[in-house]
Amino acid sequence: MDCIFCKIAAGEISADILHRDADLVAFRDLRPQAPVHLLIIPTKHIETVLDLQPGDDAVMGRMLRLADDLARSQGLEEKGFRLVINCKAHGGQEVYHLHLHLLGGRPMHWPPG
Amino acid sequence: MDCIFCKIAAGEISADILHRDADLVAFRDLRPQAPVHLLIIPTKHIETVLDLQPGDDAVMGRMLRLADDLARSQGLEEKGFRLVINCKAHGGQEVYHLHLHLLGGRPMHWPPG
Repeated sequence: MDCIFCKIAAGEISADILHRDADLVAFRDLRPQAPVHLLIIPTKHIETVLDLQPGDDAVMGRMLRLADDLARSQGLEEKGFRLVINCKAHGGQEVYHLHLHLLGGRPMHWPPG
Repeated sequence: MDCIFCKIAAGEISADILHRDADLVAFRDLRPQAPVHLLIIPTKHIETVLDLQPGDDAVMGRMLRLADDLARSQGLEEKGFRLVINCKAHGGQEVYHLHLHLLGGRPMHWPPG
């Protein structure tokens, strides 16, 4: 599997890991767009959000709650943050392994890109 | 309950509804930021993504797959799209009823706001 996020999940490529369990891994984005910019990925290789199956629902729900936990630990609970999933070219997806961006520490503008 | 999204979910305020079931409702954003700009909400009143509970996981997973279905029906499957959840002031959340933005029909830029 030649997927950089699979390799991060497997510990084969180093990253600034903030959370790791059997289903989900969180680490800092290498090109942060906000004072806090984290990525949360499922350890399972899912190319895009369009590839989600019903069996993934529980982990996706947990992924959002992990974002909450990380936001709290990063001090973002009071002021808030933005969550983003990019899908394919128009979405701006660069790595084809589903990932949730968590951005905070500054006011995020509108439109969202 | 004085929540505009609860009233849309209940049919008390009109909206351009694209999907409705017991758990989720989708409708067009009144101030679209892209050629396709939809909102998907849980019918249950959840103020922010920080208020999610483990019992919400399955519906949140299904919310992402409903976004997929809507993206396909709107012709966004090939080129892609962006999903956004705003949380509180820094996120740009305006209505305090959890909602997922689906934006597509144009290339979305980076950073996401």
